[in-house]
Amino acid sequence: MFYGIIGTGAIGGYYGAKLARAGKDVHFLLHSDYEQVATNGLQVDSVAGSFTLPAVNAYRRAADMPPCDVVLVGLKTVNQHLLPTLLPPLLKPDTLVVLIQNGVGVEAAVQQMFPHVQLAAGLAFICVAKNRPGVVEHLDKGSIDIGNYSCRDAARMAHLMADLTDAGIEAREVEYHEARWRKAVWNMPFNGLSVALRATTDALLADEASHGLVRALMLEVIGAARALGVEALTPELADRMIAYTLAMKPYSPSMKLDFDYHRPMEIEFLYTRPIALARQAGFDMPRLSMLEAQLRFEEGRTLKTP
Amino acid sequence: MFYGIIGTGAIGGYYGAKLARAGKDVHFLLHSDYEQVATNGLQVDSVAGSFTLPAVNAYRRAADMPPCDVVLVGLKTVNQHLLPTLLPPLLKPDTLVVLIQNGVGVEAAVQQMFPHVQLAAGLAFICVAKNRPGVVEHLDKGSIDIGNYSCRDAARMAHLMADLTDAGIEAREVEYHEARWRKAVWNMPFNGLSVALRATTDALLADEASHGLVRALMLEVIGAARALGVEALTPELADRMIAYTLAMKPYSPSMKLDFDYHRPMEIEFLYTRPIALARQAGFDMPRLSMLEAQLRFEEGRTLKTP
Repeated sequence: MFYGIIGTGAIGGYYGAKLARAGKDVHFLLHSDYEQVATNGLQVDSVAGSFTLPAVNAYRRAADMPPCDVVLVGLKTVNQHLLPTLLPPLLKPDTLVVLIQNGVGVEAAVQQMFPHVQLAAGLAFICVAKNRPGVVEHLDKGSIDIGNYSCRDAARMAHLMADLTDAGIEAREVEYHEARWRKAVWNMPFNGLSVALRATTDALLADEASHGLVRALMLEVIGAARALGVEALTPELADRMIAYTLAMKPYSPSMKLDFDYHRPMEIEFLYTRPIALARQAGFDMPRLSMLEAQLRFEEGRTLKTP
Repeated sequence: MFYGIIGTGAIGGYYGAKLARAGKDVHFLLHSDYEQVATNGLQVDSVAGSFTLPAVNAYRRAADMPPCDVVLVGLKTVNQHLLPTLLPPLLKPDTLVVLIQNGVGVEAAVQQMFPHVQLAAGLAFICVAKNRPGVVEHLDKGSIDIGNYSCRDAARMAHLMADLTDAGIEAREVEYHEARWRKAVWNMPFNGLSVALRATTDALLADEASHGLVRALMLEVIGAARALGVEALTPELADRMIAYTLAMKPYSPSMKLDFDYHRPMEIEFLYTRPIALARQAGFDMPRLSMLEAQLRFEEGRTLKTP
């Protein structure tokens, strides 16, 4: 199988590098990191064992890449408008595209762009960052949930799952909506609050008031999911997610890094779309709507700051 | 009538100075500003005409003050525990105590301390600040609503209203609950959001997202008031309050100044108590509960910072 990685940031870089290290045929599309990676390879500084891939298949332009059997998309969703340019050169009729991206409603939006492509969601439970070109810092966790959105080819999906496992990645296939919303139960509270309160996950959980707020936000997401028919998510998941996060190293979610570096934040797919979906199902998300408004305000100001 | 001013900050200083300038017999309790005011008097830099009172009745200790007919309390509610010490020396059997303080539930708490004292609420619609000892800066507006809580003496109340008007203060007597909640419709959104988003009133209303959030928070307060029987407050009040604020000069509400100077914030009476009262009436305030939690988190951090 040929693997293509679009968006070789922290997430795309980590999973792509793990697959490549396990001997899979992986092709990386790079942007700002191209020179570094083409010359010196890709480095993963990992709590689970650091490694370097001295020679990787690095590309500056998607048009130069081979058609792939599986494409992992690690782009930020704020760059979703680039997909109609970046994705077509990698597509074969049966290519499976895995969107390892944050949010809810991502697959529906990409399916509109590419009505016939096979799509799956990749939900990464991982603490990872890229602060230097060509160096992925893996801080904690590392599992990935895969949810089938429109893959008709069971063998392709099975092959992907086997390759991930083979690469030492804890991977499991989960029901699509459950996968997206389960991740949202973590993402929606922690990404937004880390920006609104300028705090890492540990600080948010150490304070009684913000701890209670995290929990209230999680319950709101679980309520939305259940209103949309995802009954596998029950209220006790909030406590499990909090326990999971307490066991993590102090972490700045990706939205906090975007905010700190004055980059656009993934407000649209992390907040606006799930809130709209829930509202269509008659479920109001007042706290998360408030957080969305706060983030829009913060982004409007921070993007103007050099 | 003898007037006593407890808490000669921006609010107590402004209304006390206006009364004194009009020839009323006003006695000021001062703390950090005592030396300055006793020596140089009280200065009001005002958009409506600046003036100085070269000699004022200034006191360092409440025990030295005369019994008063009306006491205006301009203390921050975070200092409410000082009232059992500060208030008794000023009290006669028929003294009317006017609490010009922020929040909901203030009178109930003070009545518990002083079961027989006559109480009224003073709701100041004014932009005022005190950044230097002995100098009150009056930036905009200036009216005051008085709501009778437990005053049995109609003549005393009428006298107060006449004196305020005589002193050039736009004053009107309004129903108590309506007065407290009407002010809360402005205070609860703007005080908290100015801290949470580090923004002045104009910035909060210039951005589409935060403008919508201000409005949503106002509607939540109006909903709570109505659930508690204050039916004079109708949803269109939100639009009128926003129009009123748009016409104001850019303003940092008092809670923002407290936050900036690492002082305790008036979270208890501005958020915790009204939210609890509404909940008892079966009305949930999810957005304002969230704002309360954010403020508790911010305060926990800022009070630790020197």
